[in-house]
Amino acid sequence: MTDWLDEIKWTDDGLLPVIAQDDETGRVLMFAWMNRDSLAMSVEKGEAVYYSRSRQKLWHKGEESGHTQKIKSMRLDCDADVMLISIEQTGGIACHTGRESCFYKEFANGQWHDVDAVIKDPKDIYE
Amino acid sequence: MTDWLDEIKWTDDGLLPVIAQDDETGRVLMFAWMNRDSLAMSVEKGEAVYYSRSRQKLWHKGEESGHTQKIKSMRLDCDADVMLISIEQTGGIACHTGRESCFYKEFANGQWHDVDAVIKDPKDIYE
Repeated sequence: MTDWLDEIKWTDDGLLPVIAQDDETGRVLMFAWMNRDSLAMSVEKGEAVYYSRSRQKLWHKGEESGHTQKIKSMRLDCDADVMLISIEQTGGIACHTGRESCFYKEFANGQWHDVDAVIKDPKDIYE
Repeated sequence: MTDWLDEIKWTDDGLLPVIAQDDETGRVLMFAWMNRDSLAMSVEKGEAVYYSRSRQKLWHKGEESGHTQKIKSMRLDCDADVMLISIEQTGGIACHTGRESCFYKEFANGQWHDVDAVIKDPKDIYE
């Protein structure tokens, strides 16, 4: 039943790097980690459940913010040690800073520049 | 001069996870790691230079296969610990299996399925 989980090459810590990409626009929204339980739960719920390394617990994305991620498809890479998920981002905001994507610091002229607008103030997201 | 490198939150091993996305199609092509030297060299060359954890050395992508990656833009995420690069993939092949993208194993009905065609036989790439 869970052979597909065994095919994954988990890190020594039992983790898998996961890239979340917007199913409609193709924009890469965030990068996080899953463990075995969180991936099984993601498939069961049809929504992204990550493993928070800092809080050391499962993290159902959107549980506080409402910004859940509906999984449309999942792909594993050639080495079976990285996963790409195509998602529908509720609220259009994946980043805890209130931006669409976590990747908003663009490199130009030897510096990183914040180039994307904040869609919603984090204070109003996590109140 | 190298402040922008100091802004990155490198792992304890001095590494940074990097996602390479096709600048034209938006397709995520591969995931790899860079260290400080390889990132500095990437910027200098305008081409992706990764750090191979298995071989423990710099890896100028395409040095053997010819499938170099021209960097069009680079973005750091909110936590400054993951980078997304938008690239022009020479030869249209990023994966060592001869496929366009490393993410070719799609999940369906409890299994991973190889869904993308091999564009070029690896034997003919790495001869």
